[in-house]
Amino acid sequence: MDATNDPKLRSFIPVAAESHFPIQNLPYGVFAPTPTEPPRCGVRIGDFVLDLAVIQETGLLVSASLPEGVFAAPCLNYYMACAPDARRLARLLISGLLREDEPTLRDDAVLRGRALLPVESVTMQLPAEIGDYTDFYSSREHATNVGTMFRGKENALMPNWLHLPVGYHGRASSVVLDGTDVRRPRGQMLPPDATEPVYGPCRLMDFELEMGFFVAGQENRLGEPIGIGRTDDHIFGLVLVNDWSARDIQRWEYQPLGPFNAKNFATSISPWVVTLEALEPFRCAPPKQDPPPLSYLRSNRNSTYDIQLEVALQTEMMTTPQTICRSNFKYLYWTIQQQLAHHTVTGCNVRPGDMMASGTISGADKSSYGSMLELSWRGTEPLQLDDGSERKFLQDGDTVIMTGWCQGDGYRVGFGSVNGTLLAATP
Amino acid sequence: MDATNDPKLRSFIPVAAESHFPIQNLPYGVFAPTPTEPPRCGVRIGDFVLDLAVIQETGLLVSASLPEGVFAAPCLNYYMACAPDARRLARLLISGLLREDEPTLRDDAVLRGRALLPVESVTMQLPAEIGDYTDFYSSREHATNVGTMFRGKENALMPNWLHLPVGYHGRASSVVLDGTDVRRPRGQMLPPDATEPVYGPCRLMDFELEMGFFVAGQENRLGEPIGIGRTDDHIFGLVLVNDWSARDIQRWEYQPLGPFNAKNFATSISPWVVTLEALEPFRCAPPKQDPPPLSYLRSNRNSTYDIQLEVALQTEMMTTPQTICRSNFKYLYWTIQQQLAHHTVTGCNVRPGDMMASGTISGADKSSYGSMLELSWRGTEPLQLDDGSERKFLQDGDTVIMTGWCQGDGYRVGFGSVNGTLLAATP
Repeated sequence: MDATNDPKLRSFIPVAAESHFPIQNLPYGVFAPTPTEPPRCGVRIGDFVLDLAVIQETGLLVSASLPEGVFAAPCLNYYMACAPDARRLARLLISGLLREDEPTLRDDAVLRGRALLPVESVTMQLPAEIGDYTDFYSSREHATNVGTMFRGKENALMPNWLHLPVGYHGRASSVVLDGTDVRRPRGQMLPPDATEPVYGPCRLMDFELEMGFFVAGQENRLGEPIGIGRTDDHIFGLVLVNDWSARDIQRWEYQPLGPFNAKNFATSISPWVVTLEALEPFRCAPPKQDPPPLSYLRSNRNSTYDIQLEVALQTEMMTTPQTICRSNFKYLYWTIQQQLAHHTVTGCNVRPGDMMASGTISGADKSSYGSMLELSWRGTEPLQLDDGSERKFLQDGDTVIMTGWCQGDGYRVGFGSVNGTLLAATP
Repeated sequence: MDATNDPKLRSFIPVAAESHFPIQNLPYGVFAPTPTEPPRCGVRIGDFVLDLAVIQETGLLVSASLPEGVFAAPCLNYYMACAPDARRLARLLISGLLREDEPTLRDDAVLRGRALLPVESVTMQLPAEIGDYTDFYSSREHATNVGTMFRGKENALMPNWLHLPVGYHGRASSVVLDGTDVRRPRGQMLPPDATEPVYGPCRLMDFELEMGFFVAGQENRLGEPIGIGRTDDHIFGLVLVNDWSARDIQRWEYQPLGPFNAKNFATSISPWVVTLEALEPFRCAPPKQDPPPLSYLRSNRNSTYDIQLEVALQTEMMTTPQTICRSNFKYLYWTIQQQLAHHTVTGCNVRPGDMMASGTISGADKSSYGSMLELSWRGTEPLQLDDGSERKFLQDGDTVIMTGWCQGDGYRVGFGSVNGTLLAATP
């Protein structure tokens, strides 16, 4: 707990109890105030966006010693690159400005008019220029489910899985923002019982419920790992991630070098990056790790966060979305600190704005499985939907809606949502 | 053949017959003229660099209608983004300026002094900001060798290999320039006969002889593939690539999502990007593809380039490098056009400056194998070196030198070299 995430804090901006964006949250994002103005950085509070470019320009953040114009940039990378202390101080100043007992912004109608914009009037953008995107595979339940389907229960987990956070490099260029339609990809696959592959639209379209973190701080020098004890200083905050997956393309292509076309056509993320400071009150212990990990993956502070996650599906026939999965970030076996330490153990350099996703977050119960592949058990147990239809995998026109929040006492620290509608393949 | 790659062309700058950089080549690179001046773009000719920022500023490229200051940028991305016609015209103008019968630059001592810099006086930089880096696996001989070692001769090639150019997403942040020392990585591996993994320095360090191309032209819209007939317009040119590999880390980590830590610590490239225009006279047929590839991978113009490749090793005891591999780019089964068409078939967007490497380029003979893994057949047949030592894999202090060129009649169009010395792991 610190001065910015105290549950008793109140803002002069009214925030409903079920809002994801009380003063305790203050997630960062990038937005264009109007279609003709350049994008800049802001924080979300209730149904408003605070324009940090304006706030910094006004001199109200001067004691944080941030680089001039850092929030006037069209991405958060420059702010993410700042030292942890500078970022903590900036958050403290921003939080202070929004408190109900602080008149500076509250009582200055002109400044409020310039700096506080209704969220429905702005256009959100990707929060960062993502230099490299990495995707881990850190849910034991998900890895076990997939392994069981493809290799049987005895060999479900690969021998390495309990010893290291398995991950692979993903495609940064096709990371898209919440609300972006996703076109069903065409590609190469081997139909069941066929001996020759075919080219055509993916038939087994899936989502994956994930979360991702953005890298912060100075780039580590090539050859110099970030020790697990220093990882928190290099993690900016988290977003929701939908790792769209073409299962039939994946099945055919993935050996021996891993998923490629099956994942490179789109990865959707939510627009507001919730900082570790805002998540701090919801820190909790990760699952017990047995066998104990090697020294470079061990830390006294190894911990995770209690973040409730939901996936809803809205077919073209539905008027409201139907929840099809309830999971939790804390189910993940490997923590984000361990992911970052493992990623850099070879000396791999990571840069502010890099994104690392968790892999599908499944729990023990079937209702918590984070993909259609698992929910329908590879299509053998179709999901029965409220509109009377059933789903083995996604159909054209389906909208996938992921949301997540931490439940405090009378308030929520949330991530908003990441939505995407599946369009038919090009003819 | 066009007006820029005619073998009869001569420059007023003397170029030796064995030089890689005659007027027919004119590869692009990024350099800082002095440590205090900002990097900018240039072309190499003989032992000189032509400063294209100066040339453009002087107005000599005006008819190419390039964006103002495109060569004053510290990377080639903006030039790579230009339309193919504009790039072709720029090359024609630059080539014209350097011809022996063209007085504009030749007879202007002041301009020559500003624009033509001895290559040993400048500092080279990475040619582009690499947004995404992809590594293919397109040599049938290499895939067969590795498959034979790990799965036996019968199952050497995976069932998908002859149907698609297998590839995976790599790490862009750790692509480094020729001459950068590479530190032996630490990581997690399973020692032979052990049941538990250990953490420590990689013991099986390797190189991989590869080439890579840079993406050019306008970014394709997400969801819209680049058809194979249009791929040449989206390929800027090629460089040499050393894909350093930690074989023991790779062996333990790679299932089921592919190589990760084993490859993310460094990938070295040569500084000069040789354009497709310069390579055109050396275009040749790729190996026959049987079975014939699916429609989206088929093209009348499917072709490759005859580029001789060599790897040399210089141990700390040697005074000159020893050649340990002679291969050729034309051995690759899958062409760069097919790689790009396959990469985007799902609608994956590619951006100017993205880099795509070939995978290890091995030929049929043992002397043409492009990695230590193959040359020493997994350590079972150590290489005997001229200094009396032997090598199963790389040792600390070893320098790996890769070079490549097209042999014309009395001239070469070459890539220079990519060198890297292996440093000991951090204590």
